[in-house]
Amino acid sequence: MKLVDDAPAPLIILVRPQLGQNIGKAARAMMNFGLTEMRLVSPRDGWPNPDAGPSASGADAVLDQARIFDSVADAIADCSVVYASTVRRRDLVMPVVGPEEMAGEIRSSHGRTAILFGPERSGLESEDVALATKIVTVPINPRFGSLNLAQAVILLAYEWSKGAALAQPTVKEGEPPAPMADLEGLVAQFDHALDGAGYYFPPERTAVTRATLRTILTKASWSTREIRALRGMLRALTGRRSSKN
Amino acid sequence: MKLVDDAPAPLIILVRPQLGQNIGKAARAMMNFGLTEMRLVSPRDGWPNPDAGPSASGADAVLDQARIFDSVADAIADCSVVYASTVRRRDLVMPVVGPEEMAGEIRSSHGRTAILFGPERSGLESEDVALATKIVTVPINPRFGSLNLAQAVILLAYEWSKGAALAQPTVKEGEPPAPMADLEGLVAQFDHALDGAGYYFPPERTAVTRATLRTILTKASWSTREIRALRGMLRALTGRRSSKN
Repeated sequence: MKLVDDAPAPLIILVRPQLGQNIGKAARAMMNFGLTEMRLVSPRDGWPNPDAGPSASGADAVLDQARIFDSVADAIADCSVVYASTVRRRDLVMPVVGPEEMAGEIRSSHGRTAILFGPERSGLESEDVALATKIVTVPINPRFGSLNLAQAVILLAYEWSKGAALAQPTVKEGEPPAPMADLEGLVAQFDHALDGAGYYFPPERTAVTRATLRTILTKASWSTREIRALRGMLRALTGRRSSKN
Repeated sequence: MKLVDDAPAPLIILVRPQLGQNIGKAARAMMNFGLTEMRLVSPRDGWPNPDAGPSASGADAVLDQARIFDSVADAIADCSVVYASTVRRRDLVMPVVGPEEMAGEIRSSHGRTAILFGPERSGLESEDVALATKIVTVPINPRFGSLNLAQAVILLAYEWSKGAALAQPTVKEGEPPAPMADLEGLVAQFDHALDGAGYYFPPERTAVTRATLRTILTKASWSTREIRALRGMLRALTGRRSSKN
């Protein structure tokens, strides 16, 4: 079994995890399937957490190398494609894929990829999910509860590992998608321009409209070059109104 | 979602399980993926076990209906095909399959099928494995430990559920891509706005720049609704300059 593929393995990002032992279990789940990079966004009980190690059952290397971030945006800034592990959201119009489809996409991706998991009790907030490229949902029995954190991690890690062992080098075409930080720049510029043009009206619709804009701009997986071109166009269109940015 | 396939779902048989809470977790794992029939062979601490219920997180129906047997042979007496969940055994010459292959075989089988899981600490004994038809092994990181009982159950249950009609309805993209005519409208409007803003300069670059714009706008496979939203935004940004369109 080959654990390292040409496309880098996805990062596992736990967003505001609550119990240290669940962080440890997630690390163990990752390690079972050859995933080693964990990021934590604002773990509730701080970090390091003494409860994490015992639950990791030997996956301490994952915990020792875990990186801590204050926000989801910071944690995914260097990622080109980000999946939010959650059930379908009625409040967001985003592509939804299953674990197999996600695994295939990750294996054929160019840049870094990440999978976001929410806090144990409540799951990801809509604003977290909106930062992702797609939603990944494990189809489970609709008449029965849901997966816990470590279960969700292990199923997606397992699905990724299946093809990583077999993956063949493929001919990659086109340019890799830009890192999220580039995309954020475009979103911010577009948002600023729309705001200046009085587009966000009435105010109570602003959040929904902003989410729509973000989804639209995220969908294309544009390259850095394409984002640069778009930003130039946008600047041309708004030249008389907004300041240079 | 259809939980009952044409071929009956496999039985999950826990052989000499030790902790009640692991029996509960296994029940929860099963229920998540539509498996409901559990059998227990000589549970160490007897049955019922008060520790099982709390860990089952609502999968009490599985526990309530669990059947108890004194031997593996008795527990599988009505099954046509039995898989032993274990790592490969050097002492036994038996067919070894992966989870996907097992799932496919179960779905196309006629009689009852079962999957055996061993005690938490030691796993299945050779004499238990020898009673099975095949070994099923989840390929894991060879440099790192092994799956615990509930993890092994959930991975095999998940793999079974995928083909069992259960998984079908969920994996859908949000909205279908718009017809090309919608996209052409967006390209034309964008093009017109850029032209009005003096973006196409010098003139000999115009064709290349237009092609870039088209590629960028085509890439996202936006829906009709998304294109409508983008056109509205574009109109807001160019409101003072271009005529209505």
